[in-house]
Amino acid sequence: MTQFEGSHILSVSQLDLDSINTIFNVANKMTPYALREKRTKVLEGAILGNLFFEPSTRTRVSFGCAFNLLGGHVRETTGMASSSLSKGESLYDTARVLSTYSDVIAMRHPDAYSVKEFAEGSRVPVINGGDGPNEHPTQALLDLFTIKKELSHSGMGIDGMHIAMVGDLKYGRTVHSLSRLLCMHKDIKFTLISPTELSMPDYVIADIENAGHKITITEQLEGNLHHADILYLTRIQEERFPSQEEANKYRGKFRLNHNIYTQHCKSNTVIMHPLPRDSRAQANELDNDLNSHPSLAIFRQADNGLLIRMALFALTLGVEDQLEKYECPVNWYSRKADR
Amino acid sequence: MTQFEGSHILSVSQLDLDSINTIFNVANKMTPYALREKRTKVLEGAILGNLFFEPSTRTRVSFGCAFNLLGGHVRETTGMASSSLSKGESLYDTARVLSTYSDVIAMRHPDAYSVKEFAEGSRVPVINGGDGPNEHPTQALLDLFTIKKELSHSGMGIDGMHIAMVGDLKYGRTVHSLSRLLCMHKDIKFTLISPTELSMPDYVIADIENAGHKITITEQLEGNLHHADILYLTRIQEERFPSQEEANKYRGKFRLNHNIYTQHCKSNTVIMHPLPRDSRAQANELDNDLNSHPSLAIFRQADNGLLIRMALFALTLGVEDQLEKYECPVNWYSRKADR
Amino acid sequence: MTQFEGSHILSVSQLDLDSINTIFNVANKMTPYALREKRTKVLEGAILGNLFFEPSTRTRVSFGCAFNLLGGHVRETTGMASSSLSKGESLYDTARVLSTYSDVIAMRHPDAYSVKEFAEGSRVPVINGGDGPNEHPTQALLDLFTIKKELSHSGMGIDGMHIAMVGDLKYGRTVHSLSRLLCMHKDIKFTLISPTELSMPDYVIADIENAGHKITITEQLEGNLHHADILYLTRIQEERFPSQEEANKYRGKFRLNHNIYTQHCKSNTVIMHPLPRDSRAQANELDNDLNSHPSLAIFRQADNGLLIRMALFALTLGVEDQLEKYECPVNWYSRKADR
Repeated sequence: MTQFEGSHILSVSQLDLDSINTIFNVANKMTPYALREKRTKVLEGAILGNLFFEPSTRTRVSFGCAFNLLGGHVRETTGMASSSLSKGESLYDTARVLSTYSDVIAMRHPDAYSVKEFAEGSRVPVINGGDGPNEHPTQALLDLFTIKKELSHSGMGIDGMHIAMVGDLKYGRTVHSLSRLLCMHKDIKFTLISPTELSMPDYVIADIENAGHKITITEQLEGNLHHADILYLTRIQEERFPSQEEANKYRGKFRLNHNIYTQHCKSNTVIMHPLPRDSRAQANELDNDLNSHPSLAIFRQADNGLLIRMALFALTLGVEDQLEKYECPVNWYSRKADR
Repeated sequence: MTQFEGSHILSVSQLDLDSINTIFNVANKMTPYALREKRTKVLEGAILGNLFFEPSTRTRVSFGCAFNLLGGHVRETTGMASSSLSKGESLYDTARVLSTYSDVIAMRHPDAYSVKEFAEGSRVPVINGGDGPNEHPTQALLDLFTIKKELSHSGMGIDGMHIAMVGDLKYGRTVHSLSRLLCMHKDIKFTLISPTELSMPDYVIADIENAGHKITITEQLEGNLHHADILYLTRIQEERFPSQEEANKYRGKFRLNHNIYTQHCKSNTVIMHPLPRDSRAQANELDNDLNSHPSLAIFRQADNGLLIRMALFALTLGVEDQLEKYECPVNWYSRKADR
Repeated sequence: MTQFEGSHILSVSQLDLDSINTIFNVANKMTPYALREKRTKVLEGAILGNLFFEPSTRTRVSFGCAFNLLGGHVRETTGMASSSLSKGESLYDTARVLSTYSDVIAMRHPDAYSVKEFAEGSRVPVINGGDGPNEHPTQALLDLFTIKKELSHSGMGIDGMHIAMVGDLKYGRTVHSLSRLLCMHKDIKFTLISPTELSMPDYVIADIENAGHKITITEQLEGNLHHADILYLTRIQEERFPSQEEANKYRGKFRLNHNIYTQHCKSNTVIMHPLPRDSRAQANELDNDLNSHPSLAIFRQADNGLLIRMALFALTLGVEDQLEKYECPVNWYSRKADR
């Protein structure tokens, strides 16, 4: 039994390197099930309450499929309009009631700290699927997990690596949380590339510096990528800007394409992006001409998200050692051969 | 085989004391599955059509989870906009088609008697999950079931008890249906506390009187609770008022908190509320300072709702005697220890 | 292994008579499972991504139930608003990511050819559930399957039959696709009955003529039905008209009821309609007084849709020969006795 059994996963700040390693080890054990080489019914009969009070198709579907892949049922809700919260119910009451209906809950909500408040009323483990501007811990974990896996192909580890973060570093929640996780590691070089108006918040920079890492801050993409092992691109978070005009000023400011990559990056620099990328002509921060490049890790990131979420369900429900016991063969056509 | 197998559950008026007892007995058998002490796959492979033409997160999720707890699949629809009903299709046609896709249907719809009309075209049993201002029989059943269980702790039964109903007795559908079920019992004292404008409809009062029960009608909370065994509070049903201003006149009119409870109620008066309660300062009909009071039964009500819905699925599908046959152990972390 | 294993089903134009026969044979094998005489767990553990970027309750639920009937899980999305497509993501990216989460995808989208574009990025088979004005191949297949089954009761086949198509032949996508499938057969007589403004598009007429079939085009219902073996009625597709006023001009123009049927049709002319039918008084293209007529095949069409979708899932996932291997009895009340 791990520290996770019966616990909530609310913030990356509740994790240390040991517990992160535990999660990553279980995530690795999930690979054959996600690839459909075999399947497991370890959570057959269990129910996930997939409560998305703020819609997010991809994250919701990813949590739901992760649970299905372990054999469980999923009950969902999307949006706030028809929920009792709109009739003045407290998050505590909502949690007391809805947590009776499931064995574990994944929750997204537009308000910071709402998931924590909900968790206090819940009778079952709650996993934070994003609480507005605050945290999105499963995204941070899948990003770190991806970095670790990608660098291992070149024999590298996270300690000592060089990461360049590019784009909207102000509103891009994922770079904040990832930085926090990287602070637990040693001797990392950060290159932060953004317009001054969209630069990394001061508290994140302070955290990085206090952890003893090196930071370079610049507005220039070209010329600053040569040493990067990881290139982490972000979308301009238009929906968080005061106006569309304001957002438009920055769309298309930084663009990576095959030509720029070849000219300015090492040959094996890993390209990451939390997705969705904006592929409209006026934005296009990461061009489709890199789609078949072996260093493009963006779809492997999404795949890893599934593994991380499967791992967190297994750990909070304490079944991480029973996966094999409930294994079955996959008797249908599966995509594994294509990958 | 009971009278329920293959039948619709449309109204409390189709039930008598015997059939209610049958439902309650099966609901009691559901307790260990809902508490996750063990599980049953009795409805593995069966499909619930969870058709919510009017959104209601909680009731929808409760029906869905009840079906999952019996091992079945759930297919859902929410809202009317994208349904064929908006293109002029009759409820009969909708029922003929959608009932081919499932083994049992739970349905909510904004129009009175719509569920009955739908049931006439359905090839499978239909359970009314609320048809607008008309009925919500599973809520009435869970309320009665809760009263019975709570009173049994003090060695009491429903016959001879004293119930105080408080708040919006005009628009609060649950107090109407519950009264109807209580009319089947003997020698009950009703204290009805509401503003004159929100008082219990005349036809409900007539039913209660015709059944030989005693009624006290008052606008005053304090001083009228001393003899109540059950205190049934309701929320002002703002959404049913002609205007928000009209609703605001009554918000916060009756409030129960720890102080008032201690001063005006017997020490074991059971506190019930159909939920959601409005916890905003201007309403707050039931204060959070009673949250840990042992007589607060509001969350046990919600738990009982799950048992009642499981029982109705088992009965309409005729599997109430096969639960044990399909039992399995629960191999994951479960909340049972916390309760 | 058939040609379908691992393939997309995007258009009826990818099918020939042989492959259609393969689908129909598997669909026939699905009948006892759909009728609940027994069940199969052949796809237990598999996940359907039911992606409805344009809402359609009935088609979505039909795909989902078809997958549940084979034992699989269903993850869904409805509408476009909360999807990454609204943030500028390409269909290719959406497909790369979402196809990681499932074993097969059913997709509806408002734009023509969008499903094909999506399929190019997908790692798993994609079944077109309707791509706007373009195609809806499962509807066309279920229509043809229905014609074949219904005519076989009179010892007839599709070759040589006479079909009358009535109503909105311009915007009614189903009559276009069905015509395409009928073109693969021999010696069919088409009677096309519509207002001139809503007549069958020229390219469909050209296809029919090129295939050597006979066409009669008329604006008159009465007097043109005497020889029809199949009467295929359609709803005025109001939502595709430039204005409601424009649509109103044609509502109620053609109506079939018991009286007209008896007077103008052969005694066993099969009545079909893709549903929903508009039963409001001002439209009412197919009257309820025919509801119990044995030649009314409209609800059998919907039933057949389930069989066709089950067949396509089984074929694309290559399990069509394993259905019996994973059979189980149905242990609950089932509607089979009523049919």
